[in-house]
Amino acid sequence: MIVTLKKARTIVRKALEKGRALELKPLSVVVLDAGGHVVAFEREDGASAGRFAIAHGKAYGAVMLGMAGTAQMKRAEDQAYFMNAVNGVFGGQVVPVPGGVLLRNPKGIVLGAVGVTGDSSDNDAIAAMAGIEAAGMTGEI
Amino acid sequence: MIVTLKKARTIVRKALEKGRALELKPLSVVVLDAGGHVVAFEREDGASAGRFAIAHGKAYGAVMLGMAGTAQMKRAEDQAYFMNAVNGVFGGQVVPVPGGVLLRNPKGIVLGAVGVTGDSSDNDAIAAMAGIEAAGMTGEI
Amino acid sequence: MIVTLKKARTIVRKALEKGRALELKPLSVVVLDAGGHVVAFEREDGASAGRFAIAHGKAYGAVMLGMAGTAQMKRAEDQAYFMNAVNGVFGGQVVPVPGGVLLRNPKGIVLGAVGVTGDSSDNDAIAAMAGIEAAGMTGEI
Amino acid sequence: MIVTLKKARTIVRKALEKGRALELKPLSVVVLDAGGHVVAFEREDGASAGRFAIAHGKAYGAVMLGMAGTAQMKRAEDQAYFMNAVNGVFGGQVVPVPGGVLLRNPKGIVLGAVGVTGDSSDNDAIAAMAGIEAAGMTGEI
Repeated sequence: MIVTLKKARTIVRKALEKGRALELKPLSVVVLDAGGHVVAFEREDGASAGRFAIAHGKAYGAVMLGMAGTAQMKRAEDQAYFMNAVNGVFGGQVVPVPGGVLLRNPKGIVLGAVGVTGDSSDNDAIAAMAGIEAAGMTGEI
Repeated sequence: MIVTLKKARTIVRKALEKGRALELKPLSVVVLDAGGHVVAFEREDGASAGRFAIAHGKAYGAVMLGMAGTAQMKRAEDQAYFMNAVNGVFGGQVVPVPGGVLLRNPKGIVLGAVGVTGDSSDNDAIAAMAGIEAAGMTGEI
Repeated sequence: MIVTLKKARTIVRKALEKGRALELKPLSVVVLDAGGHVVAFEREDGASAGRFAIAHGKAYGAVMLGMAGTAQMKRAEDQAYFMNAVNGVFGGQVVPVPGGVLLRNPKGIVLGAVGVTGDSSDNDAIAAMAGIEAAGMTGEI
Repeated sequence: MIVTLKKARTIVRKALEKGRALELKPLSVVVLDAGGHVVAFEREDGASAGRFAIAHGKAYGAVMLGMAGTAQMKRAEDQAYFMNAVNGVFGGQVVPVPGGVLLRNPKGIVLGAVGVTGDSSDNDAIAAMAGIEAAGMTGEI
């Protein structure tokens, strides 16, 4: 299973719909493939200018480390110097908080990741999961 | 007039449809707003991994310089050191070739830009223009 | 409403006048537009050499995140690794303290930001607000 | 003689007035001090988003090298690898074309530089010189 554009579109649209249903702030959603490369992105009207970078940072760290946002955050809290160092080797592109959701196949292989930003990190993750489920995939928050 | 997500979606979809109609190679399309920030992006299945950066670079230079891809390419051919220097001040993010299409309002104010990559630069620009026209906007190749 | 040069000049001049009226240290004031791009900047005689970067950093983070300096500082205090990561994705350009004042329209859309530096962060914010009010705009400290 | 804020303001305003008198495209003007640090900057309405970086690059190279834009351009044309290398050591911040005007005192000591961008490089330099003369200073194009 790979993250096709068709699947990525479903993820983006359904994550945004979830945000509207929950009356969240304007969201931005990115979908990355197994190499950490962008497949699709959308930023809702009213979202602040820098949201691509933040959504991307949440998803990028998930793919590069094979570790979802919640686990990254725990690591950042337990061992800040480790996540700082990780950001050194990845050019500062990793944002280690929830809203970066890892996509795995049933065998645990990383297929890509989804990054959502705009509301609280926990709500961002809820929206991401709605999109992932609509696409028939499994997410790790 | 601003580049809403609705307009950006239309640009992306119609540019990709044009690519399919013309049997171009897999395309990637980005839409940036007036500040050079990403509103929407899609990469077709089969496109190479780095296409976000190239699409973005075509559109980003157009917004930052207020100069479309064709004019940037001419400048790069006439005065290579100038475009090199421009790329220095913009962190290497400018790709000065056609396929970076500038969006202006009737008064000439930059509203954003569209970047398409995947086929020849000229075909990329044709696909971009199809998307822009479908969204009721005016593009400068 | 956009941040015209005329409005930006008013903001800069009136912020500096406020600094003189309050006998603050020499101030530097930058005004950014909705895309985070500089519209105007002035540095008073006697201010230290690096003040452009600091003023810019205060305002840039506000625009990119849609979050004023006070809220950024709280986030940096609560979750230092998050603001570190944000600075990674924005190339180290974010200075998360008061003195970065967000400009919004009545619907909450970000119009730009003002960054003031030179005195205490709180006094910087007071000077910024004086300029913003003189320009008939609304600031979020 | 140093580049006070008062002088810098005069340079910026008179350069912009010259641009209006000559019906040039919207201009952006930066004034740097003897250390290459920004004293003042203004970007006219309608100028493209990235004009601060270009104006800055023109002036910054002039101060750092003690060489005005015309001389830098000649060097770039004669010895491209040298200007590339210069840009390496200065972090890509040098834009070696006219419109970067050096400010010297009567003994030849560098006092700062003015960077203008928006129209042709030669017209940019004309506007810069108008500002510099209005401030009672001497410019080297």
